[in-house]
Amino acid sequence: SVNPDLAIERQTASFSVEKLTAWLDGGAEHTRMRRAVVEAIECDPVFSRENQYFESQNERYEAAVRKAVHLQKKMQEMGWAVNGPESKYIYRAVSGDIAFLLHRIFMRSISVLGSDKQVAKWIPLATQYQLIGSYTQTELGHGTYLQGLETTAVFDITTQEFILNTPKISAMKWWPGDMGRSATHTLVFAQLYIHGKCYGVHPFIVQIRSLQDHSLCPGIIAGDIGPKMNFEHADNGYLMLQNVRVPRENMLNKFCEVQPDGTYVRQGSQQINYFTMTTVRISIIPDEVIIPLMKACTIAIRYSVVRRQSKLKPGEQEAKILDYQTQQEKLLPQLAAAYAFHLIYNYLEELFDKGYREIQIKNFNALPELHAFSSGFKAMITQYCTSAVEICLRACGGHGYSLLSGLPSLYTRILASCIYEGENTVLLLQTARFLIKCFMATITGQPVPSSVTYLAAVKAGKCPAKNKLDFLSPDVYTEAYQHVAVRLISSTAAKLQDLIQSGVKKHNAWNQCTVQLAQAAKAHCHYITVKNFAETVEKLETKAGIQKIMKHLCDLFALHGIFSNAGVFLHDGYISGAQMDMVTASYLDLLDVIRKDAVPLVDAFDFTDKSLNSALGSYDGQVYQRLYEWAQKSPTNKQMSPAYEKYLKPLLHNTLSKL
Amino acid sequence: SVNPDLAIERQTASFSVEKLTAWLDGGAEHTRMRRAVVEAIECDPVFSRENQYFESQNERYEAAVRKAVHLQKKMQEMGWAVNGPESKYIYRAVSGDIAFLLHRIFMRSISVLGSDKQVAKWIPLATQYQLIGSYTQTELGHGTYLQGLETTAVFDITTQEFILNTPKISAMKWWPGDMGRSATHTLVFAQLYIHGKCYGVHPFIVQIRSLQDHSLCPGIIAGDIGPKMNFEHADNGYLMLQNVRVPRENMLNKFCEVQPDGTYVRQGSQQINYFTMTTVRISIIPDEVIIPLMKACTIAIRYSVVRRQSKLKPGEQEAKILDYQTQQEKLLPQLAAAYAFHLIYNYLEELFDKGYREIQIKNFNALPELHAFSSGFKAMITQYCTSAVEICLRACGGHGYSLLSGLPSLYTRILASCIYEGENTVLLLQTARFLIKCFMATITGQPVPSSVTYLAAVKAGKCPAKNKLDFLSPDVYTEAYQHVAVRLISSTAAKLQDLIQSGVKKHNAWNQCTVQLAQAAKAHCHYITVKNFAETVEKLETKAGIQKIMKHLCDLFALHGIFSNAGVFLHDGYISGAQMDMVTASYLDLLDVIRKDAVPLVDAFDFTDKSLNSALGSYDGQVYQRLYEWAQKSPTNKQMSPAYEKYLKPLLHNTLSKL
Repeated sequence: SVNPDLAIERQTASFSVEKLTAWLDGGAEHTRMRRAVVEAIECDPVFSRENQYFESQNERYEAAVRKAVHLQKKMQEMGWAVNGPESKYIYRAVSGDIAFLLHRIFMRSISVLGSDKQVAKWIPLATQYQLIGSYTQTELGHGTYLQGLETTAVFDITTQEFILNTPKISAMKWWPGDMGRSATHTLVFAQLYIHGKCYGVHPFIVQIRSLQDHSLCPGIIAGDIGPKMNFEHADNGYLMLQNVRVPRENMLNKFCEVQPDGTYVRQGSQQINYFTMTTVRISIIPDEVIIPLMKACTIAIRYSVVRRQSKLKPGEQEAKILDYQTQQEKLLPQLAAAYAFHLIYNYLEELFDKGYREIQIKNFNALPELHAFSSGFKAMITQYCTSAVEICLRACGGHGYSLLSGLPSLYTRILASCIYEGENTVLLLQTARFLIKCFMATITGQPVPSSVTYLAAVKAGKCPAKNKLDFLSPDVYTEAYQHVAVRLISSTAAKLQDLIQSGVKKHNAWNQCTVQLAQAAKAHCHYITVKNFAETVEKLETKAGIQKIMKHLCDLFALHGIFSNAGVFLHDGYISGAQMDMVTASYLDLLDVIRKDAVPLVDAFDFTDKSLNSALGSYDGQVYQRLYEWAQKSPTNKQMSPAYEKYLKPLLHNTLSKL
Repeated sequence: SVNPDLAIERQTASFSVEKLTAWLDGGAEHTRMRRAVVEAIECDPVFSRENQYFESQNERYEAAVRKAVHLQKKMQEMGWAVNGPESKYIYRAVSGDIAFLLHRIFMRSISVLGSDKQVAKWIPLATQYQLIGSYTQTELGHGTYLQGLETTAVFDITTQEFILNTPKISAMKWWPGDMGRSATHTLVFAQLYIHGKCYGVHPFIVQIRSLQDHSLCPGIIAGDIGPKMNFEHADNGYLMLQNVRVPRENMLNKFCEVQPDGTYVRQGSQQINYFTMTTVRISIIPDEVIIPLMKACTIAIRYSVVRRQSKLKPGEQEAKILDYQTQQEKLLPQLAAAYAFHLIYNYLEELFDKGYREIQIKNFNALPELHAFSSGFKAMITQYCTSAVEICLRACGGHGYSLLSGLPSLYTRILASCIYEGENTVLLLQTARFLIKCFMATITGQPVPSSVTYLAAVKAGKCPAKNKLDFLSPDVYTEAYQHVAVRLISSTAAKLQDLIQSGVKKHNAWNQCTVQLAQAAKAHCHYITVKNFAETVEKLETKAGIQKIMKHLCDLFALHGIFSNAGVFLHDGYISGAQMDMVTASYLDLLDVIRKDAVPLVDAFDFTDKSLNSALGSYDGQVYQRLYEWAQKSPTNKQMSPAYEKYLKPLLHNTLSKL
């Protein structure tokens, strides 16, 4: 039965939860398909995550492989095609704890970088799992700066082979997933040398384990890199290569080829490749970033209406903690952010689909903009959502700290998204470089991509708001965000120029501006996110119930951003101190409004209990009962610890006397 | 051998590292004693943490018990008295991963709350480990709000016993340390009932496990609460009581007694008790909060001069990542904060020692101030340091995410400090209540404690700084912090009064101000921390080398705070936009200055490699070699996973064909 404190929250929803769910899914037919996939996965015990919080790294790995192998069977059974419409729901349904994801990257890389002949040879083998592939790029000494990779591949003209080596410890491959224990083959990125000349980093297919008994191949030293903050299920590996020879045909050669006589030929355009790398950054966002935040919000908000602690009014019943303003101020902005980022992801997806179509007809004009967008938004969204999940965790007090709440694993996992697929600071600076370039172009009247034409609109002006209600106008806050983005970009551009004109070397000047450049890039992404949210809400006109609550969330997201970054809005007086007080008043008022719909708003995310895997967040709100039941299953309760016989008993008995 | 990239950083220190270490320790004689304790512990293999990152929760618990039992022997051997001068270094040396800490709280509670007779009975038994005690207060449903505890203790006049019960699931005791598996006895906090009347929460000594075979006593259901984000070594437990009877003498009765006929007598003052609870909050700060931050800084800064990535200047060698402004801006403010909080702890310790002396002569006047200080500073310091450790972790990229870096466990552990010993938001609001009260008192001319007399000094004024160098004057920034603290407290007090005057009920008005009240309380603590840092630096006059670098750190801490919270300084124009640009310029300039001494500044913390337990942070900077060596010890590399025979082999072989 549902805890009455939770049930009552569902009776007063200002909108239809089912309609909101359908809208989030992009239509009721998608909701149906998603639920069917989730149902099929969750009713199959092989995919159970019931014991996940009790398992060791070894057990988690074994489970991930078991699930990956079983998934092949399941997909055949269910008639789900590999890239069919169900596929995006499958990963969500298994919550990502599954092996062979790098096998897919291995295949994708060969498809993109390999010649037709290479594709014809390797893709069928990989598709039928006659080999298990992975993708081996990062080294102990190099992650972000790929040009600095130190693994070597020397072309031996006499045998028509490449000889791969790890010349020093920092060149050892480190981190590649699926490689530490599973893969038989991997794509190794190495510096190509021909006749002593270096031609830069290229990908080589290398077999690392026997197809017969899985033993390491000659010249290969490989293993698992050990415990991590999360991703225990993944066998991130290390790899050392000692004179490992692969045939000339194993260098992927759609774009660059080494001919038998050692001639190096670069052919075709690599731009499509960079585009592929760029899209990967965006593609991780829904499953690895937004859904975890939605789950964290669901858990924390449901718990916060079940948990009662202390009294708001003397003599009354203890209050639900969500009725405290401080708790609302912790959680509701994160809920609004989850919606904001869901919507900006839709926007980015559309932008990239359009870009892909252009590139297919050889129009590469949009590439710099797309690269800048993918970098900046990846950094901004992962950083924002990671902080948001942490806030949800902390807002649940001691019980949030238990793994059984589900929050610690959401946090430790989403944290990795700030690091992988490009370190966030490095990415923000790439976006900043694009913005500075566009800003300079607008000054000299050159054309810039439509997403940044706003940079030309440097208006002095002041915020026109006269009272707190004016700050509920999307025009008012969107313009404030725009003003700040332009100001931060233009003032940093000015600082950069001043430094250079004062004689500072260009690269030093750049370095001296990077703290402010990163801030400017974030402000740009924040502005676009607010603008997109406001525009989406406006288009919702016909769906009245949904539009109203979405408008509140949009306002909250925007005002929370102004409240939390007050300095950049106040700096040049665009917003005055008195106006900031209006922002604060409207912001705090909104908390009270949205609090009423908080539970329906997380219910609309439509997570099953199994997918939340949280003792605090289940639909029925039976928090304490579930914590107790789950704790009893812990291995710490399976038998008396050997510590008793070894240490406690001697301690107590040595001196045991009558008590 | 030391990595040359790290060695060179030590050659140009602007001060004597050894002298700074001695200053941090409070004198060279303390440094000597600390080193002797650390050496004795670390050379003893029983205390080894070598395999810590590979161990399961069960193994960690067993190790913690082993260490606790062995420590008794060690202390006798070494001639260390239980509360001797070495004791504060012992906990640091074992890095806190040790059992029986709650046994000590059990003893302390009996000493404070028990009658002479109770002390005489129980303390010798506990001292000689004829029992293992713990402290059982928190329930599933109540942590912060102790008055809401639901466990009952009903006095049975016929048998002269208390009957203890867990009347519902939310009343189950949950979280108490040392209780899940180790303790034989525990101090249970329960609502006392006599003749059907409730007298509030009282402590009862309850035996929960047999002294013969450690089996649970009749009516006791107890166990371990399962996996947590950290503290795997601790057996946090659950406890359900079913008609458990304890003799009347087992209620601790120094202050309240139940007489044989059921008469309830309250005697003496409980104020000393509240003071004890208050001091615990402060006492956790060095070992659980500041030292972890110092360790995180040591790891991240040493790694950042060994890690080279990308190029600052084309054509040059790859740059040390600490030479990037963005990396400096991540790490150096955290380093400054570690020093700032070390110094404010010294200040708080002195304040509390003085308070303790006053209370011993029955002067309780300072209690409200001490309570407010302990609450606010506990919240502010734990929150700040937790974020700081997270920044250090993220600043180390992928390798920081490996448990072998030592950073994840520092983070997951320090995070708990935001929750235990009082949830931070609740604590901040207690401080805010004190501040508002004092502020109102200053208005009506009543006396207030000396630490808050500044509240009376509400000056309109503006910051007098004319150029960026003016912001390196402690008077200038300390006054800015003071101004902000006063403004936030006074404006929130005004809002509170306005609400009440407009007819809002007092408790609702309070709730509507809590977001701003918490902010005001933080601003107060931030101000005192900056002021104390500046005053301490000023007193350092004679120790020239140290004073100079400490002045830089103090400036950095202060300006970082203004830069990061610009909104509150700009709000009323106390600092103008142009002045904020000066703050930013001075702040960024300081990064460059302190960067030169960054490694000596962390070396001065004087952590041994064993105590850091980090592949990234060791003194010799051999980062990559150590990561590789440690990874090979991981259980994931001990044998081929069963996943191969079970899943991978059938997958690969079922379809194995000639490749």
